[in-house]
Amino acid sequence: MPFKPVESLSEQIATHLANKIIRGEIKAKERIQELRISGELEVSRGSVREALLILERRHLVDILPRRGAVVTEVTETNVKGLYDVYGQLLELMVRGVTRNWSGSDLDALIKKFEVMRAAKDRGDQLERIFELGFEIMEQAFMIVGNPFLAETLLNFKPMIQRTYFMALQSQQGDFHDNLEFFASLMDAVVKREEEKAAELVKGYVKDQLHSVLNTLSS
Amino acid sequence: MPFKPVESLSEQIATHLANKIIRGEIKAKERIQELRISGELEVSRGSVREALLILERRHLVDILPRRGAVVTEVTETNVKGLYDVYGQLLELMVRGVTRNWSGSDLDALIKKFEVMRAAKDRGDQLERIFELGFEIMEQAFMIVGNPFLAETLLNFKPMIQRTYFMALQSQQGDFHDNLEFFASLMDAVVKREEEKAAELVKGYVKDQLHSVLNTLSS
Repeated sequence: MPFKPVESLSEQIATHLANKIIRGEIKAKERIQELRISGELEVSRGSVREALLILERRHLVDILPRRGAVVTEVTETNVKGLYDVYGQLLELMVRGVTRNWSGSDLDALIKKFEVMRAAKDRGDQLERIFELGFEIMEQAFMIVGNPFLAETLLNFKPMIQRTYFMALQSQQGDFHDNLEFFASLMDAVVKREEEKAAELVKGYVKDQLHSVLNTLSS
Repeated sequence: MPFKPVESLSEQIATHLANKIIRGEIKAKERIQELRISGELEVSRGSVREALLILERRHLVDILPRRGAVVTEVTETNVKGLYDVYGQLLELMVRGVTRNWSGSDLDALIKKFEVMRAAKDRGDQLERIFELGFEIMEQAFMIVGNPFLAETLLNFKPMIQRTYFMALQSQQGDFHDNLEFFASLMDAVVKREEEKAAELVKGYVKDQLHSVLNTLSS
């Protein structure tokens, strides 16, 4: 089991607020007020200010001079921009894994994928399946060994989760599990078919983007 | 002239420390001590802590539990990872500019490029020429209209500057101005030759990476 250091207080506050933004409990364009949060959570204003900087890094708030922290918007333009960058970086990561894996590197990924398949067979919620997708991605970071790529992708995770949540809530119905995608991707990675793996990622990201845009326009 | 809001105190502290890290005055693996910085600059510890979070976002420090902020390393692996991600994102940006520009969008870019050419003709320092390169990039953000891409690229800027500074200091001599690259790139963008523009960026980033790696191994 990998060692996981205790989160700092400001990290904990950031995670707490991030979850509320992801679930739409704190809405786009809403101001997050330091003083109110520090009262509610019984923490110092300094810790809240640090948490807001962490949320800014994760693209969930903008910190504006004299206005404080404001929750970012999820517009069509933003979502397209987000998936454009995220897709490009995912592709870079998948290319890295396909080229670099050796020995038993893929065991942990395959194990996670089996957990995902079992979750699907049990009829677990889509949210859980998506979370497992992120866990597979986080496993892959170790194979690629590029800390800048890992960090940048992780900073985008809450925004991606936010768009998933919107799509799941809207019940438009075209947001489905990603088992098939992960199965084909694993196969391409194992066979070191880099171009195929890259194409699969492109197609997958395009589908997800399409579903999210449908949600926004409905 | 675009409106530039006053930087917050923590932003100013972050910029101050970033410049020292970029120039090697604060070295890799060095600890940055909150208390010392707050004394030296006569600012609160809270502001220093916020500045350190901004530096972490810009990839210049890691904040470790119980150890505080430590300056990131510039190893061969790190530099390769950095240029891999940075190059991919630059390519995405240049593709966006090539596809999206309309009307007089490119005027500001071309003007900046003329400033760069004049700086070169005057024999200005390479550092100044590179800075103008970043300014051209920042102008291009407005054409692409992807805030996530702009933010992510800007967060990498200090690390790229740090590697440039190392290469310039080492006087290995193969780190040259980028006038020719920018001239060819402008030409491809104007003619909407997207693939050519992308290839130029790939080649340019590869050259820069090569020069930096030469510096590291010498």
